[in-house]
Amino acid sequence: METLHASRSVIHQRINALRAAMQHHQLDACLVPSSDPHLSEYLPERWKGREWLSGFTGSVGTLIVTADFAGLWADSRYWSQAEAELAGTGIGLMKIPAGNSLQHIDWLAQHMTAGQVVAADAAVLGLAGARMLEQALQARGVVLRTDLDLLDQVWPERPSLPLPPVYEHLPPHATKTRATKLTELRAAMHAAGAGWHVLSTLDDIGYLFNLRGADVNYNPIFVAHALVGLHHATLFVAAGKVPLEVTTALAADGVHVAPYANAANALAALPADAVLLLDPRRITLGLRQAVPAGIRVVEAINPTTFAKSRKSDAEAAHVRAAMEQDGAALCEFFAWLDAALASGSEVVTELTIDENITAARARRPGFVCPSFGTIAGFNANGAMPHYHATPAAHATIAGDGLLLIDSGGQYLGGTTDITRIVPIGQPSAAQRRDVTLVLKGVIALSSTQFPRGTRSPMLDAIARAPIWSAGIDYGHGTGHGVGYFMNVHEGPQVIAASAMPEPHTAMEPGMITSIEPGIYRPGKWGVRVENLVLNVPAMITEFGEYLRFETLTLCPIDSRCLDLALLRSDELAWLNAYHATVRERLLPHVSGAAQAWLEQRTEVLQAAPV
Amino acid sequence: METLHASRSVIHQRINALRAAMQHHQLDACLVPSSDPHLSEYLPERWKGREWLSGFTGSVGTLIVTADFAGLWADSRYWSQAEAELAGTGIGLMKIPAGNSLQHIDWLAQHMTAGQVVAADAAVLGLAGARMLEQALQARGVVLRTDLDLLDQVWPERPSLPLPPVYEHLPPHATKTRATKLTELRAAMHAAGAGWHVLSTLDDIGYLFNLRGADVNYNPIFVAHALVGLHHATLFVAAGKVPLEVTTALAADGVHVAPYANAANALAALPADAVLLLDPRRITLGLRQAVPAGIRVVEAINPTTFAKSRKSDAEAAHVRAAMEQDGAALCEFFAWLDAALASGSEVVTELTIDENITAARARRPGFVCPSFGTIAGFNANGAMPHYHATPAAHATIAGDGLLLIDSGGQYLGGTTDITRIVPIGQPSAAQRRDVTLVLKGVIALSSTQFPRGTRSPMLDAIARAPIWSAGIDYGHGTGHGVGYFMNVHEGPQVIAASAMPEPHTAMEPGMITSIEPGIYRPGKWGVRVENLVLNVPAMITEFGEYLRFETLTLCPIDSRCLDLALLRSDELAWLNAYHATVRERLLPHVSGAAQAWLEQRTEVLQAAPV
Repeated sequence: METLHASRSVIHQRINALRAAMQHHQLDACLVPSSDPHLSEYLPERWKGREWLSGFTGSVGTLIVTADFAGLWADSRYWSQAEAELAGTGIGLMKIPAGNSLQHIDWLAQHMTAGQVVAADAAVLGLAGARMLEQALQARGVVLRTDLDLLDQVWPERPSLPLPPVYEHLPPHATKTRATKLTELRAAMHAAGAGWHVLSTLDDIGYLFNLRGADVNYNPIFVAHALVGLHHATLFVAAGKVPLEVTTALAADGVHVAPYANAANALAALPADAVLLLDPRRITLGLRQAVPAGIRVVEAINPTTFAKSRKSDAEAAHVRAAMEQDGAALCEFFAWLDAALASGSEVVTELTIDENITAARARRPGFVCPSFGTIAGFNANGAMPHYHATPAAHATIAGDGLLLIDSGGQYLGGTTDITRIVPIGQPSAAQRRDVTLVLKGVIALSSTQFPRGTRSPMLDAIARAPIWSAGIDYGHGTGHGVGYFMNVHEGPQVIAASAMPEPHTAMEPGMITSIEPGIYRPGKWGVRVENLVLNVPAMITEFGEYLRFETLTLCPIDSRCLDLALLRSDELAWLNAYHATVRERLLPHVSGAAQAWLEQRTEVLQAAPV
Repeated sequence: METLHASRSVIHQRINALRAAMQHHQLDACLVPSSDPHLSEYLPERWKGREWLSGFTGSVGTLIVTADFAGLWADSRYWSQAEAELAGTGIGLMKIPAGNSLQHIDWLAQHMTAGQVVAADAAVLGLAGARMLEQALQARGVVLRTDLDLLDQVWPERPSLPLPPVYEHLPPHATKTRATKLTELRAAMHAAGAGWHVLSTLDDIGYLFNLRGADVNYNPIFVAHALVGLHHATLFVAAGKVPLEVTTALAADGVHVAPYANAANALAALPADAVLLLDPRRITLGLRQAVPAGIRVVEAINPTTFAKSRKSDAEAAHVRAAMEQDGAALCEFFAWLDAALASGSEVVTELTIDENITAARARRPGFVCPSFGTIAGFNANGAMPHYHATPAAHATIAGDGLLLIDSGGQYLGGTTDITRIVPIGQPSAAQRRDVTLVLKGVIALSSTQFPRGTRSPMLDAIARAPIWSAGIDYGHGTGHGVGYFMNVHEGPQVIAASAMPEPHTAMEPGMITSIEPGIYRPGKWGVRVENLVLNVPAMITEFGEYLRFETLTLCPIDSRCLDLALLRSDELAWLNAYHATVRERLLPHVSGAAQAWLEQRTEVLQAAPV
């Protein structure tokens, strides 16, 4: 959904309105983060205050406004975009160098003086970040006020809470009952010595209660908080979102629905002897402050974060089925694309890529919506990892080169996320070499067997090594966890050298993770090849339990983009075995042009002559 | 050097003497760590107080004594040894589970009550550990007294400071002058805003002043502290250790020698406006406490730790020469071993392995001493990574199996550390498979090219992956840094999944690191193959600077231990290329039987028939 860009004069007015409110409350600075009360990755419109105030629409960025200064802190992914969007607004772009995401806190500590007051809304401040902000300001004698929501005061047309109704995730796709999930959560709470647990993260909530929604694009979640006790639970949701039959079903499991605004008060009303479990990295300062001072708080990762990451055998079976549907859709799409490009019968652009691939998925049973905004990047556009084609700016697919397509779907029985490279015309030798190096990275990691409990960041180098061999690297992680008809990005595992290998990053059976190395040549082309893999038991020896990756994604890797001479014999064998599996699993689901494309693209590849 | 084991009655007497001293000072508990004032890995005799008091001689362990309890905290490497050595002493073995090295602090916090007093000698307490101990005890209202050295009061025959003289590390092997090193250190101090720097770590001191000693076995260091200012420096060393000509040479570089005991007073006498740089992980509480309260302290890793890890091109050249000497010695040794085993003319034991390999090294020019105690483990003995043969307990080499030999030397131009497997009789197929898997791990990591700055722990999985593929793992890190005629173990880099990938673990050109995966089957056999590698520039591309590993170690890998069918063609090519290099570099230095052995063991290996 495209945000209307506000004109410069409108931005000036909004910043002035904010300054007037600040003056009224005697505030010297106001900090507006890109955050909601649920620390979500994608923000509902109501919490896009930083966008509304500044005109900068990138997904991450912090706005700070004083009486005579306004700055927008953003990292390098967004500098070009920010420069364009902030031009003429009077808001300065404050460039955050790599690895210093707290630079805006340092700025405040340096520019505010003792006795001055900085305001930030506790309701949207993550607790960990809030603690750092507090510390930095206190050291300077600067006051932090967190009780004001200035957006409410200056944003008259501020969107209300999203309206789409909540619905149940039902059997067969919901393979574990709500009651069982609550029992398991309560056992974890008990083990931590807690009788209460507060949850704000929307995927944890959706998982726990077997509920889904449509409050943001792409993630099937709904805005809510939850408070779980040993015998009852309360779901705080806006009025009108939970249909009667769902309320009834919840009540049968001891879950009652209360107004969204009541969450803080419910915490404040906890009994004096309550012991409350919460995740300090996934809760806001606002909710934390609502907990009465005498109550013992146990800080730990949300138990549901671990539980939902470990897909059961039944869930894995549904995911395999969803992958077959997704793969069949891709066969149809790629068959159409090949034909359209070959015949020239229609102009193919990055936008029509998106339309057609989404339409192909939409025809599959179980499809709900895309899992993220399709990234279709032709040649140089593929070199920008966060590129999205727009009507105003997009490429036509013609000539020679590489088309990178990263797309996915939400199905009732799983979430997909796949990246493939389509050869356009005759890709050059250099282009084919890059695709082959990236494929070697995918194969290296996909073929790795590892001890259960291995810290996922430590696997990152295995995918990079073949690419490093050519003096190349990519500026993003190798893989992220994926939900089960849930957020396409989830933890706790992450295959990224930038993540600390803490205990919670351990690899466990049932986790679904992406493997997606890439090579990006600004101004020229970009390559990424992505599969989703499932951690499955491989063997148990005297040295312990070992897991391996089952590749879940079913879609040929276009050999016309490869230089087979660069593949070792075992790597070529992997590719042929993978294609044999893809053919066997997808044939039952395709016909006509899609079937012909599938059969051609999964033919056995011979080693290049020596 | 073997420590005489004290009898149980002697231990009883010593513990009683300690208790009497505790009572005299009204102490409720005494904590005796295995530590010296320099946080060294190997302790001079004077600081083996925990050994003297308890009889437990393992290199790591903490003793805590109260009026009616005595416990020795040790990790799993030492449980068998501790059980044997503590039997009948009245000292209980407190087993530390993996990952909880601070368990003894928890015990104190739980067992001491408010108002009680725990004593630990500040002079040997690392600052970081002391802070944790202090925090834990303070939380319980327990007093920590750190001003007493009870060992001095109860150990009448306590060894004095080691006597061996200090000597200069001279050109050509010292390739950078003392004056240059001091200039570089002062530039780093200045960049940190400091005019003073205190050093306690003995390898940093030896490096900085181009001095060596013989105060412990295997590491060519001497006991000292140092205080460096912008124009002068002071070396605190026991009287009689620094010969006149060395004192004179030091004075010419503005370094003057003072008594060892003066270090703390020198810190106490720092001017009020001094800014002092120190490494909180490498300094004792005792020295830290000596710094006047008003002085600003900058905490950072010792600049010399980084400087000495990056061997210059000239140093690397000397190391290559030392490796040729070491390799030639090994050819002589292995030729002797092969002949002795084949002819049966002498009984070969794990002890004679040590004697002969050390003697072979001792014949080489530039050799100073072994770099650590030779580990020679035949069959089951090889499965214990910390096994050392003793006259009382050692194996005879006969029959069939695998002999693991891990040994090394200190040369004026480098430090060596190498592990090879010798086939005894006919190794079994299972044994040969294990050696081949370990070799695949060595080859995988040795062949890796990586971005300069890569955090060394993140490379660990590359060596493990081939071994994990068989459901096997090893319980130690993959590699440690190695000094230049200095400690065989040094930082800041470390190739180990258990180490946090913090910024200081970054790989830089010139670093020398071991690559030493292994497979250990308790009761059966053990395998380890170890080479030292040098970080050398590989290429610079638009993606940055890339480094690769130059294998420094020159010694054939005995193919009679391998199953060539398990090697990929590129792995076999690596081995043949390595052997070709070994032959070319060592031939000039060997003759007779050693030459014949070298030529035979470096013959080109053919792939096994398919």
